[in-house]
Amino acid sequence: MSTANPVIALDVMGGDTGLSLVIAAAEIARERYPKLRFRLYGPEAAIRAALAKAPRIAADSVIVHTDQQVLGTDKPSQVIRRGRDTSMGLAISAVKAGEADATVSAGNTGALMAMAKLTLRTMEGIDRPALAALLPTSKADMIMLDLGANTECDAENLVQFAVMGAAFARTVLALPKPRVALLNIGVEELKGTDELKDAAALLRGVELPMSFEGFVEGDGIGKGDIDVVVTDGFSGNIALKSIEGTARLVTGLLADAFRTSWLTKLGYLFSRGALRALRGHIDPDTHNGAVFLGLNGLVVKSHGSASARGFANAIGVAHDLIVGDIARRISDDLDNFRAHRPVLTPEGEAGDDLPAGDA
Amino acid sequence: MSTANPVIALDVMGGDTGLSLVIAAAEIARERYPKLRFRLYGPEAAIRAALAKAPRIAADSVIVHTDQQVLGTDKPSQVIRRGRDTSMGLAISAVKAGEADATVSAGNTGALMAMAKLTLRTMEGIDRPALAALLPTSKADMIMLDLGANTECDAENLVQFAVMGAAFARTVLALPKPRVALLNIGVEELKGTDELKDAAALLRGVELPMSFEGFVEGDGIGKGDIDVVVTDGFSGNIALKSIEGTARLVTGLLADAFRTSWLTKLGYLFSRGALRALRGHIDPDTHNGAVFLGLNGLVVKSHGSASARGFANAIGVAHDLIVGDIARRISDDLDNFRAHRPVLTPEGEAGDDLPAGDA
Repeated sequence: MSTANPVIALDVMGGDTGLSLVIAAAEIARERYPKLRFRLYGPEAAIRAALAKAPRIAADSVIVHTDQQVLGTDKPSQVIRRGRDTSMGLAISAVKAGEADATVSAGNTGALMAMAKLTLRTMEGIDRPALAALLPTSKADMIMLDLGANTECDAENLVQFAVMGAAFARTVLALPKPRVALLNIGVEELKGTDELKDAAALLRGVELPMSFEGFVEGDGIGKGDIDVVVTDGFSGNIALKSIEGTARLVTGLLADAFRTSWLTKLGYLFSRGALRALRGHIDPDTHNGAVFLGLNGLVVKSHGSASARGFANAIGVAHDLIVGDIARRISDDLDNFRAHRPVLTPEGEAGDDLPAGDA
Repeated sequence: MSTANPVIALDVMGGDTGLSLVIAAAEIARERYPKLRFRLYGPEAAIRAALAKAPRIAADSVIVHTDQQVLGTDKPSQVIRRGRDTSMGLAISAVKAGEADATVSAGNTGALMAMAKLTLRTMEGIDRPALAALLPTSKADMIMLDLGANTECDAENLVQFAVMGAAFARTVLALPKPRVALLNIGVEELKGTDELKDAAALLRGVELPMSFEGFVEGDGIGKGDIDVVVTDGFSGNIALKSIEGTARLVTGLLADAFRTSWLTKLGYLFSRGALRALRGHIDPDTHNGAVFLGLNGLVVKSHGSASARGFANAIGVAHDLIVGDIARRISDDLDNFRAHRPVLTPEGEAGDDLPAGDA
């Protein structure tokens, strides 16, 4: 294993995705990144059969046999007790053992998170790992975290999420100084919870490779003026799913609109190419690959309903994070933050720089 | 004043809306509800000039003169100190004095909330008022609350919001037994904060004129299977604005898509009618009129960028709540809840009916 030839451990039995879809995705990813190598965790005979249709990866992929899998209905507590020999458990252990640089699984999120935390442990300087993902905006893509790993977060957690999210944006979106903001219910300094105000004061008070933009509201997520939106896992999950639900609602209503008459059907025919481009812009497959940041090892979650192309995108995210050495970036930034950490006054303000405000 | 002839106090200087737009909205609302009467708060000469174009309401509207207004930039604390004689302050006071059954204002939300709470006070049995509004789904409209009045809420607050939201749905959506759910990051009983689990246990344990459906996730808001989504003001505001932002993002991308070539422009021409229907379905104007529930008096907030038709819809919401006597419905349901209130065990479960679960 070396970053010259990144190795990815694939859980070929994760979720309802299907073994042959995962193998097809690996084949697509190999075409994009010829140096990628795979370790495939699942039933050997079925993997060999699927590899017959994947000539690029058939020769040099390592197969690790197991018949056991994590089911969508398994609870995290069950998986922690009995999941070590499943395809998911073995793939994560490969990262821990240094046999792979990252793992990608479409398995159930709670189980994947629990097993990844237990096996890989949280990296030094991070109190809690967070789930991060790419989202479309009217301009370029952006990153949001935490999307559900931590129901409640303190200011320290939020600052760590900001550091990790900025490192993610520099690595995957190639932004030298990403614009980072905290999700809040107003952009004024006095809005929101104490945790948010303290986190803002800390982030304003220190130099990090990011441009801290203060607060952003829910309708700012899709505008494209912020590259990294930081929030606790409760609000982040609510925001993410509200966005997904609304995108589905509007595109569903749009499909209905085109079905109303022969005239609108004709209109659809004329507009088809452009509408496909719109669909592609907001397609979950295009933005597939949520990352657990803050562990000693990379774990990427592919959406349960992703296509082979979508799963290949999740593999692409893992590839970019390995090649960009995100772990080193995060740990350098944390060292820098600790060295220059501002002292918060009891009002949650860093030093004397901030206006006193009006409650 | 009587519900036979409901009287609405209009803040004609609220927000950037413009006095003549508010008068035009009142004229539209009067056409829909001939029994409605208005009290108009603002500069008398300008109101008289605008009434020249509003023949239906010109004769029997009462004008209360003031030159003072709440600005969009005013802080709630300033408005509380100095806002009593503004158009907003006087309109709210008219509700308190029994001169009007409700007030409608497009003024700044924080100021309106602060002044309404101070003047009208919270109704008996309610600890905190909440902001509620109608939202479109793929089926019928639904109601979400709280949308930002309370950053943090306990289980008791959430139960009260559920009672108020259900009364709102029965009154405005004419649903005899609305389906109510708590917004959460999963639908399983063990997901989310303690406040949510306790609120769910309380709502499961008592008979109220609603069908309690447990938890709903962010992507369930737009599906149309829940009539009332209950949440704290932080998550509610994040969800609402994420939904608004995404609807704008997708419709903006759609407009761009139709502009790509002469072929897509032709396609738009053929589809125009159906696309207008889609736009109408998710139009904020159609769903205008957020309500502060839980005060001794009705206060409706119109969106700052609403059209006259949109503002008339907010007046329509006020009309329906007056005629449906929402205050009595809420207070009857609270009495009923208190009389049959379940006792929570330390694990946050009502009695022995619930499964113990697996942490």
